[in-house]
Amino acid sequence: MPEAGIHLSLIGIGSGNPDHVTLQAIKAINRADLVLIPRKGADKADLADLRRDILVNVLTNPATRIADFDLPVRDAGNPDYRAGVDDWHDAIAEVWSGTIAAHLPAGRGRVVLLIWGDPGLYDSSLRIAARLRPAPALEVIPGITAVQALTAAHRIPVNDIGAPFVVTTGRHLRDLGWPPGVDTVVVMLDGDCAFRHIAQEGIHIWWGAYVGMAAETILSGPLFTMAPAIAEARTAARRRHGWIMDIYILRRARA
Amino acid sequence: MPEAGIHLSLIGIGSGNPDHVTLQAIKAINRADLVLIPRKGADKADLADLRRDILVNVLTNPATRIADFDLPVRDAGNPDYRAGVDDWHDAIAEVWSGTIAAHLPAGRGRVVLLIWGDPGLYDSSLRIAARLRPAPALEVIPGITAVQALTAAHRIPVNDIGAPFVVTTGRHLRDLGWPPGVDTVVVMLDGDCAFRHIAQEGIHIWWGAYVGMAAETILSGPLFTMAPAIAEARTAARRRHGWIMDIYILRRARA
Ligand SMILES: C[S@@+](CC[C@H](N)C(=O)[O-])C[C@H]1O[C@@H](n2cnc3c(N)ncnc32)[C@H](O)[C@@H]1O
Ligand SMILES: C[S@@+](CC[C@H](N)C(=O)[O-])C[C@H]1O[C@@H](n2cnc3c(N)ncnc32)[C@H](O)[C@@H]1O
Repeated sequence: MPEAGIHLSLIGIGSGNPDHVTLQAIKAINRADLVLIPRKGADKADLADLRRDILVNVLTNPATRIADFDLPVRDAGNPDYRAGVDDWHDAIAEVWSGTIAAHLPAGRGRVVLLIWGDPGLYDSSLRIAARLRPAPALEVIPGITAVQALTAAHRIPVNDIGAPFVVTTGRHLRDLGWPPGVDTVVVMLDGDCAFRHIAQEGIHIWWGAYVGMAAETILSGPLFTMAPAIAEARTAARRRHGWIMDIYILRRARA
Repeated sequence: MPEAGIHLSLIGIGSGNPDHVTLQAIKAINRADLVLIPRKGADKADLADLRRDILVNVLTNPATRIADFDLPVRDAGNPDYRAGVDDWHDAIAEVWSGTIAAHLPAGRGRVVLLIWGDPGLYDSSLRIAARLRPAPALEVIPGITAVQALTAAHRIPVNDIGAPFVVTTGRHLRDLGWPPGVDTVVVMLDGDCAFRHIAQEGIHIWWGAYVGMAAETILSGPLFTMAPAIAEARTAARRRHGWIMDIYILRRARA
C-alpha cells in the first residue's frame, strides 16, 4: 500500500508544549515527503505557531516539504448542526486531497498531519481521513492529551484508587448534570463554564487554561468558592489572548 | 525548594514503545542526579527492560546516576485489601527514601522515577510520593497512556462525536455492568475478561494486548462473535509471555 499510493500519518503533537512531542512522532515526521499545515487564522495564531515551532525543532530531513493549506470555514448558518459539520468535514477532505495532489502528483508518498493533543480524543481528523479517495494507508501516532497535561500541571491522578471516571463535554454537563455512576468527571470543549450549572456542594475542581503552554493558568479548590474566580480568570485570559482552551476535573467526595 | 532539598520528577514513559517517550521526559531525565529503577522480577522482565532501553536511548548526561531498588512485595494475605495496599505503599515510600538517602546523603538533588504510561492514570506513584518526608518538590511529566496506544493501534477515536465516555476497571464492569449514561467504555486493569459478564448484543469491542510493544496483538469486531476469540488469544498470549497487559474499548450503537 504505502509504495503504491498515499500513506497518511495523523500525528499527535501534544497539547501546547512543543516538548510534548514523542520520539515516535519525530521519526514519523522525518520519514514524510510532505507535511500539511493549516495556515493560521488571525485569532488562534499561537496554536498554528506550535506546529511550526515543532517542525523547526525536530525536522531534519531536507527532502521533507511543508505545504500550507487554508482550512475551510464551517457554515455556522446551517440550521442542522450535524449536517453542517459533515459538510465541513467533506470540504476539509477536499482541501487535503487537493493539496496532496498538487505536491505529490504521482499519487504516491508519505503525508503527515500534525494533530493537537491525541488524534483519538475529540478530534475529527480520523473522520476526515476516512473520506479520502482513493483511501490512503493510514497510521495514527498517539500524543499527549489535554487531560494528561492538566493532571500533570496539578500533580494529581485523574482517578480515585481503582475508581471509574467520565470524560465529557461542557454541553453535556450543562444539559444533563452530573453523570451517573461516577465521582470524577473530566470536562473538555466547554465554551461557557458549565460547572456553574451543577449543584456545587462537596465538589472539588482542578481547572487549567493553555495547559502546558507558556500562558498556562491553573486554579483549584472547592467548586463552591472557586467557580466565580475561575469564570473571572477565564474571561480575563480570553480577552488578553483573543482565544482560550480550558479543561477541568470535578471530583465529589465518595458517597 | 529544589536547591534546598530533594526534587522528584515522576516521568511518564508511555505504554511499552520506547519511542513513546517525549522530549520533555528526555530533558527531565538528563537533568537528573539520580534515576531510580525497580529491579526486575523474574516474570515481568520485558516491563523492567523498557526503562533500561529508554535510558540507553536517551540518557546523555554522564553525571546522572542510576540506582536499582527492590520493589517490596505486597502482602496479599491481608484480609483488608485497602489496608494491605496502604501498607505496601508505605513500604515502597520507605525504599524510595532509603535509596535516595544512600545516593544523595546531603538530602539535595534531582531524582527521577520512570512511570509506565502516564503518572496520573491508574498509577500509585503520586500517592507514594505524598508519603515522603521531608516532602520533596514534586514535578509530573505526562506520558502516552495505554488508552491512546490502543486507539492509535486500531486507528479509532475513543469517543463518538461530542459524546462522553467512561474509563473503568474490569472489576467494575463485571460487578456493576454497563456504566449508566454512556455508549463508550474503556476498560483497564481487567484480569479476567470482564466483557464476558455483560449483555453482548449490539456492542463492538476493540481489544489490545502489549499495545505499542513488539508483541502487540489487537482484535476487534462485534462482542458477540469476538468474546471467545479474545479470551482465547489472551490465555495463549499470557502463557507464551508469562504475563499480560490488555485494554479494550466497548461501544454500543447509540440508543
Ligand atoms: C477539539 S478538542 C481536542 C482535544 C485534543 N485532541 C486532546 O487530545 O487533548 C479541544 C479541547 O481540548 C482541551 N484542550 C486542548 N488543549 C488544551 C490546553 N493546552 N489547555 C487546556 N485545554 C486544552 C479543551 O477542553 C478544548 O476545548
Ligand atoms: C496499573 S495500570 C497503569 C496505566 C498506565 N499508567 C497508563 O497510563 O496507561 C495498568 C493497566 O494499564 C493497561 N495497560 C498498560 N500498558 C498497556 C499495554 N502496553 N497494552 C495493553 N494494556 C496496557 C492495562 O489495562 C493494565 O491493566
